[in-house]
Amino acid sequence: MCELMAMSANVPTDICFSFAGLMERGGRTGPHKDGWGVTFYEGKACRTFKDPLPSCESEIARLVKDYPIKSCSVIAHIRQANRGSVCLANTHPFVRPLWGRNWTFAHNGQLSNYQEVLQVSIHEPIGETDSELAFCWLLDQLKRQFSVQPDDMKSAFLYVASIAHTLKALGIFNMLLTDGIYTLAYCTNNLHWITRRAPFGKASLIDSDWVIDFQEETTEHDIVTIIATQPLTDNEQWHKMQEGEFALFHLGEKVETSGES
Amino acid sequence: MCELMAMSANVPTDICFSFAGLMERGGRTGPHKDGWGVTFYEGKACRTFKDPLPSCESEIARLVKDYPIKSCSVIAHIRQANRGSVCLANTHPFVRPLWGRNWTFAHNGQLSNYQEVLQVSIHEPIGETDSELAFCWLLDQLKRQFSVQPDDMKSAFLYVASIAHTLKALGIFNMLLTDGIYTLAYCTNNLHWITRRAPFGKASLIDSDWVIDFQEETTEHDIVTIIATQPLTDNEQWHKMQEGEFALFHLGEKVETSGES
Repeated sequence: MCELMAMSANVPTDICFSFAGLMERGGRTGPHKDGWGVTFYEGKACRTFKDPLPSCESEIARLVKDYPIKSCSVIAHIRQANRGSVCLANTHPFVRPLWGRNWTFAHNGQLSNYQEVLQVSIHEPIGETDSELAFCWLLDQLKRQFSVQPDDMKSAFLYVASIAHTLKALGIFNMLLTDGIYTLAYCTNNLHWITRRAPFGKASLIDSDWVIDFQEETTEHDIVTIIATQPLTDNEQWHKMQEGEFALFHLGEKVETSGES
Repeated sequence: MCELMAMSANVPTDICFSFAGLMERGGRTGPHKDGWGVTFYEGKACRTFKDPLPSCESEIARLVKDYPIKSCSVIAHIRQANRGSVCLANTHPFVRPLWGRNWTFAHNGQLSNYQEVLQVSIHEPIGETDSELAFCWLLDQLKRQFSVQPDDMKSAFLYVASIAHTLKALGIFNMLLTDGIYTLAYCTNNLHWITRRAPFGKASLIDSDWVIDFQEETTEHDIVTIIATQPLTDNEQWHKMQEGEFALFHLGEKVETSGES
């Protein structure tokens, strides 16, 4: 399995604190040593840092941890390989263009007997993972449903949420998907989220001894949501998502959620 | 204008030496201060480091310069903005998937009156540059010419070379394009290349006082081609490309070249 993390915020925010906690699980406090990656949005563009090395040993992870890149939308992933070898092509997140936007996807879980269901023709995978194929399949479905970009991008995300059960039927499918504005979390068994807003408090990481006082780092208007497979802090209340539930965030604010679809 | 660099090699090779020379031109020995980027291939996958900051001040550029990432195919770019603002979306190289491979593109020059000629429908730009639109147009033409991936990818690159004159007719179009195996260089007025092979010698950078002895860094079977807008070393013989000329490299070896098409 793997660990996922996303941030959705209404102001460009750095993820050094949360990323530091996640990266510890990449071979030190957790077994997820088969690569890691993180995608930061700046407007419609994004940049991805990834490495097939364990995050706790990666020079590039050290840079990302120490260098505060501010973004309203981030997706990060650390991998414990099941389908597909340990190599760059199989390292999440996966980023692909659609409708003149970058879409970024990361998956926790494992699918079985999926080749027949997940037929793709428009978006072809580069690596060998079930995850990248699932992403390509979702983009193919989106492109078929909306031949041009819908006026309201929320409808595209709600469409993805409505077809995600097809992927859940193939195994464990915890997913994060963003276009830099909206972030969709879809849960099979392993996703938590928290929205931080004023009055901000202190938070302490589970995986290291870092304690942060968000009041010193934020303004009263900031709204910052973190989504992760497992809570990253031990003194805050994280919402545990239910099987088949999705949550859609728009620049930090939850705008839609559901139970089993 | 901008500066371009590519490496094509038959064994994974680091580009620290050439990259160091190029990065000096990003605000120190040259005026190309409007961002930089570099894409490294590992098999069919690639990773890109980019920054809208000047390369000579960029923390990320420092990491790439000091951390030897070995690759058979690299494209790098430093930008002096003409079309499009200074932001991540307008920062080269541009990477897009086609036929289950990553294609990477960088451009030096400037096009005029191009909107009518460069109509795209399959690949839509994310940023505002003439360069990214030219890349999307080339990929659209490729997808139209070959509905599925050709058995011999060389034919795809020769097709791109054959239609590049349409872009040259719109202005200055010096281009680098790779799928990680083949690298195509197309020249309007500003491209040079050099192939290094045994017996290797010493080389000294123009833009810094770094001298390297390639004999200490290579084996006798290594073949490494560097392509750049301007020569990076001052004690070697670089081939200057002519207007309308292309050169196609396959893992370091030149496999095809032409005069004005």
